[in-house]
Amino acid sequence: MKKVYLAGPDVFWPNAKAAGAAKVTLCAEYGLQGHFPLDTELDLSGLTPYEAGLAIYRANLHLMDDSDLLIANMTPFRGPSMDVGTAFEMGYMAARRKPVWGYTLDGRLYSDRVNQPTDGCDEQGDAVEQFDMADNLMMIGAINDSNGQLIKAKDEQSLEHHLKVFRALLETITA
Amino acid sequence: MKKVYLAGPDVFWPNAKAAGAAKVTLCAEYGLQGHFPLDTELDLSGLTPYEAGLAIYRANLHLMDDSDLLIANMTPFRGPSMDVGTAFEMGYMAARRKPVWGYTLDGRLYSDRVNQPTDGCDEQGDAVEQFDMADNLMMIGAINDSNGQLIKAKDEQSLEHHLKVFRALLETITA
Repeated sequence: MKKVYLAGPDVFWPNAKAAGAAKVTLCAEYGLQGHFPLDTELDLSGLTPYEAGLAIYRANLHLMDDSDLLIANMTPFRGPSMDVGTAFEMGYMAARRKPVWGYTLDGRLYSDRVNQPTDGCDEQGDAVEQFDMADNLMMIGAINDSNGQLIKAKDEQSLEHHLKVFRALLETITA
Repeated sequence: MKKVYLAGPDVFWPNAKAAGAAKVTLCAEYGLQGHFPLDTELDLSGLTPYEAGLAIYRANLHLMDDSDLLIANMTPFRGPSMDVGTAFEMGYMAARRKPVWGYTLDGRLYSDRVNQPTDGCDEQGDAVEQFDMADNLMMIGAINDSNGQLIKAKDEQSLEHHLKVFRALLETITA
């Protein structure tokens, strides 16, 4: 049974545990074992916040090492781009030559999400990538070159909608 | 001579080429060879924007594979977190068990940068990491566990200041 690392800012949601459990259940329906980062149920008692962060980092690396592929929720998070922790994980799996898949509930191109008061540049004067890609080229390159896919769906932030899109992705992966 | 991959949103700056060249020059001063992502001078003529993005992705992977360590500019970019492309690259190098170093011109903790109208949660109700870390735990974990360091400096966005902090990092790396 192939194991899937479930990356995304879902771990920060108020309903993170339920969301993770629902994704894991859907994976099972498609013959896959889902690894949700909150699954590890680490004992963080007695650790400083910094040490707790490190323990979670190590647990996540262990889960990725144990996974055969990654599915990322790439919906923009606290800005025009996706969650940076998820971006890190996509890079980690790409380096291990494992397939990287993703979905986003913002179907726009990155260049259509960043305000560009002057031609091709943001308010700070920094260039905005114009590669007809949904986010930074490192992420899209990793998906493309690992034969993954990025599913773009409408912006509706309910858990139900996330799971519907996630199911469509599982359908494609296992087709 | 050790090779350093120079990661960061510097490639989007109006003075990207000059910034990259200056960092490479500083690396040489410390006996290191700097790889700046713009160095490759790819011929992108005839490619669609999407294909050009992929070509840059592949060139960056090649540069990382050829590098012994990574230095990331982790200064927040278009939001409370660092650039996602740089985050991806830190994950990539971490997976290859190569040392990851960083600097940021925002010395605050991540939890001090995100507005939290309700206790520990942002405006959307999503939890804000409280690990006394400068950014998402995946990045800080990678730096910590590869025996790298993160240098925090004052917020002054001139190239001169960036280079001063960058030099301090090189000093530490080669000490």
